[in-house]
Amino acid sequence: MNHQEILTSYIAAFVSELVNIGVEDVVVSPGSRSTPMAMVMAEHPELRVHIHVDERSAAFFALGMAKASKRPVAILCTSGTAAANYFPAIVEANIARVPLIVLTADRPHELRDVGAPQAIDQVHLYGNHVKWFVEMAPPENSKDMIRYVRTICARAASTAKRSPAGPVHLNFPFREPLIPQLDTADLFELTERSAGYVSIQAGEYKLTNEEYREIGESLRSYKRGIIVCGSIEAEGFNDAVIALAERLQFPILSDPLSQLRSGSHSGTYIIDTYDTFLKNEKAKQFLKPDVVIRFGAVPVSKPLTIFLKENSDVRQFVIDGGAGWRDPGMVSSEMVYCHETDFCRSIISYINKDNSLSYFEKWEKINQLTRKNLAKVNEIDVLSEGKLFYQLTERLPEGATLFVGNSMPIRDLDTFFHFNHKSIRIMANRGANGIDGVISTALGAGTFLQPLYLVLGDLTFFHDQNGLIAAKQFGIDINILLINNNGGGIFSFLPQASHPKNFEQLFGTPLDLKFQSVVEMYGGHYELITSWEHLSSSINANKEKPGLKVMEITTNRDNNIQEHRELWDAVSREISQLLDGKC
Amino acid sequence: MNHQEILTSYIAAFVSELVNIGVEDVVVSPGSRSTPMAMVMAEHPELRVHIHVDERSAAFFALGMAKASKRPVAILCTSGTAAANYFPAIVEANIARVPLIVLTADRPHELRDVGAPQAIDQVHLYGNHVKWFVEMAPPENSKDMIRYVRTICARAASTAKRSPAGPVHLNFPFREPLIPQLDTADLFELTERSAGYVSIQAGEYKLTNEEYREIGESLRSYKRGIIVCGSIEAEGFNDAVIALAERLQFPILSDPLSQLRSGSHSGTYIIDTYDTFLKNEKAKQFLKPDVVIRFGAVPVSKPLTIFLKENSDVRQFVIDGGAGWRDPGMVSSEMVYCHETDFCRSIISYINKDNSLSYFEKWEKINQLTRKNLAKVNEIDVLSEGKLFYQLTERLPEGATLFVGNSMPIRDLDTFFHFNHKSIRIMANRGANGIDGVISTALGAGTFLQPLYLVLGDLTFFHDQNGLIAAKQFGIDINILLINNNGGGIFSFLPQASHPKNFEQLFGTPLDLKFQSVVEMYGGHYELITSWEHLSSSINANKEKPGLKVMEITTNRDNNIQEHRELWDAVSREISQLLDGKC
Repeated sequence: MNHQEILTSYIAAFVSELVNIGVEDVVVSPGSRSTPMAMVMAEHPELRVHIHVDERSAAFFALGMAKASKRPVAILCTSGTAAANYFPAIVEANIARVPLIVLTADRPHELRDVGAPQAIDQVHLYGNHVKWFVEMAPPENSKDMIRYVRTICARAASTAKRSPAGPVHLNFPFREPLIPQLDTADLFELTERSAGYVSIQAGEYKLTNEEYREIGESLRSYKRGIIVCGSIEAEGFNDAVIALAERLQFPILSDPLSQLRSGSHSGTYIIDTYDTFLKNEKAKQFLKPDVVIRFGAVPVSKPLTIFLKENSDVRQFVIDGGAGWRDPGMVSSEMVYCHETDFCRSIISYINKDNSLSYFEKWEKINQLTRKNLAKVNEIDVLSEGKLFYQLTERLPEGATLFVGNSMPIRDLDTFFHFNHKSIRIMANRGANGIDGVISTALGAGTFLQPLYLVLGDLTFFHDQNGLIAAKQFGIDINILLINNNGGGIFSFLPQASHPKNFEQLFGTPLDLKFQSVVEMYGGHYELITSWEHLSSSINANKEKPGLKVMEITTNRDNNIQEHRELWDAVSREISQLLDGKC
Repeated sequence: MNHQEILTSYIAAFVSELVNIGVEDVVVSPGSRSTPMAMVMAEHPELRVHIHVDERSAAFFALGMAKASKRPVAILCTSGTAAANYFPAIVEANIARVPLIVLTADRPHELRDVGAPQAIDQVHLYGNHVKWFVEMAPPENSKDMIRYVRTICARAASTAKRSPAGPVHLNFPFREPLIPQLDTADLFELTERSAGYVSIQAGEYKLTNEEYREIGESLRSYKRGIIVCGSIEAEGFNDAVIALAERLQFPILSDPLSQLRSGSHSGTYIIDTYDTFLKNEKAKQFLKPDVVIRFGAVPVSKPLTIFLKENSDVRQFVIDGGAGWRDPGMVSSEMVYCHETDFCRSIISYINKDNSLSYFEKWEKINQLTRKNLAKVNEIDVLSEGKLFYQLTERLPEGATLFVGNSMPIRDLDTFFHFNHKSIRIMANRGANGIDGVISTALGAGTFLQPLYLVLGDLTFFHDQNGLIAAKQFGIDINILLINNNGGGIFSFLPQASHPKNFEQLFGTPLDLKFQSVVEMYGGHYELITSWEHLSSSINANKEKPGLKVMEITTNRDNNIQEHRELWDAVSREISQLLDGKC
């Protein structure tokens, strides 16, 4: 066998295994060193190859696909800084527990650290931001090395998927010539499989029945318990946690990413305005818990984080199937590493139904009062950020996916997006909370989830404008609500806002951009929204249009902080009135 | 002292030291955790703060500033993926030997790996792609800790500058509240300096006179020697190497980045078309050397690399003041680690003037024949990539800086940009040869070097469109020649071009973008060039215009490879005719 045949059989074995273990999509950024892998991948009939020139956006696009499809997605690039551009999305995938299989082509060993072009040190390139790194053996096609490459592929996919999911990195040294031999009839033939290639079955962390019983029985004694749910992907979890809440009569403080704020269930136990009312001292006293059960990622809400911290004297369980350490406030008294759905279903049988609703009703009452008051945002006539988020439940179609940017949008969503029956799936990049790669992640999600709405600010839009090309190249439908307050709106909420010197330069950072131009460059439909009626008609009209649609809503950072404060103050006053003398 | 006073004094000591050791520019990307450092920096009267929202572009912008100013430039960002976005530019800086001081704000220790927002593992974030990493001590203001922070700053800058220059990374954990105390009168007062803060004086690698003499005397015996110069920054090097070439009667094969292809010197020893004629077997035989002396980075030219490889039986010196290993062909027989200028100046005195010019004249003859033939590119009527580069020497003004993109532009420059007296400085990102960050690096350079011309392809332009904002925000003048062949032109020169199946999808990758939109979004002046006359008049008219100016030249990838091949074949035929019977 010559060099090219060996190269081809080694790579074909890898690619066929990749498909075998369930990878259906690969995002490829063009390059020379990755030529053999790219060309072999393009030959596989069951693998979708998506070409994305900017590796930063490409990796976020793959992240979005993996989040939406709940399957590992592979990314492939050439050697050099191309691979370094993957880094932000890899960091996010690692913390957000999203399975990515990162494939980088590299120079062979003799061309490393000797000034060869496009050669950088790619060994452990992403440090401990990947779950697993393998410096692949140079292509060989002995029986053992074919089994090796298949085995590594299976292990990589299993490692990426296994809880906690995350990215893995395989670095492939390829020697020239780089052109594979594609005229082989049986490129991906898998007769060797009968020879016993490994399959990997991975379980989940589970406690023993005895351990579940102990927890269940201990929970009986608490009368003032709360459940907190952050972003979580465990199958069957939502129904299980609602059943548990009902049995315990505990309210569920539901982060926007918990997927509990929309759905066909009754919504009885869903508390969705705590971000607002937990700013109020009296409410916090009134609602003081005696036990806390947390699931999923750390919630978005800072008032909730503070509330949990202020109650660090009570038992606080953190249930984590990924065995991480999700406890920035150092408040957890018990870390419980087991599958979250299994936990809910298992402990429920050890808990008797309790009809003393009084504590749950307190939460319900405050939540309803807060909802009613926040609804006043609707009375604002001018275009405002809070009202936009308040109206989303009404404006978005049934079954929509709503992707939100970081900084202000996710926080406004937390404040203003309340329980509804529309089954709206909410997504965001909340692993590392970056403003980078948001457009790309949303578009990646959009290949699986439609209709798709993305709400983000102007700096976040600017950061990943290059990501828009995916909408054009792959014909993905997306409705973007671009909130343009000409700069970093969140800083107006931070202490530096009271230090006007250099504030605009360092934090306000207005870009003064007319985004219409870039939208049109990508063949998108652009509208500058001028009124609430205009927004309604645009959202409706855009439902019929394919491709990229951007509705720009210009707001004012100073008015925005003013509106938020007035609303929060009003809620706080009402709560204080209600509770005066009660705590 | 309260928390904020301690925070402020610690950071102010760092910032004042940063200025003391010669940093004049810092590129800041807005964020919350970096607030105290950003606010203190903005107070320093001698530090220029440049705000750049997209950290990837920001780091490349700083890279360009450092390359142009030959001073270390600092970059500052917040915690999280922001820092990961710096990675591509850091990788480039490390290989290209450019001093960057990377400052990242981080969560304090108790908020790490516990699910805190925007917290990622930043310790050794860039692996071995930085020369030095320091996890900074949390702010304290004891005498020792103030001396500590000043000392680390001095060491960081010295390490970044010291040969081989490169990036260093300091990670600062900051605890809330993050607002510094800026109303102190003597924020940056340096009376403590008299107490003896450390200054660092770093030497260069130099050989002893005896060692220089040995090399010098041994070179006398060679009649067929060549000097090869790649990109090099050693002060005084150009004059020194020309003097050495003259004494030795060795031709200098001058890479476009050697800065030897333009200048006020006679140009006698400069060979500038070897990339073309070293494709010819007869020329390579005719010019076979018996010794090679190489300076600087590995040259762009692949034919030259092959030529050196084919002559691996002769002595090949690599002179490297940065003590690296610039020898991808494994051809070096002697690695000499000493300052390159010192080398040239020192060995010259041990070499007698030799008047047997015959070998040098062979190079001169072939070079002139090749130049004459390549000049025929001028006869092409349609817009063509080769002709564009051929005409640059004529079209660019005296003293211009010419930044070129990777892939085709730098190669076309190598082929078509010949010796001239205009003192044109040529720059490119040739550390890792990425297509990323090119616009930003050029704009960074443009803050120091004007007039500035950037020639790049459409994929490279696309990759760093966000970088254009610096032209708008900072009012930097730049003339961009955008060669739009709608895709990856270089792949037409690679073996995959003869495998048409999937070629356009995987390698051609047409983007079909109208770049006029994005240019206008950044307030730039755009023109689609329709003829050579149009190009002339546009270049001239744009000389008078400030800001961003983009001249787009659309070409055709198939015609381009055809034109190149015909030209190279013609040169080869003429050389063969000349040399028939001569070798």
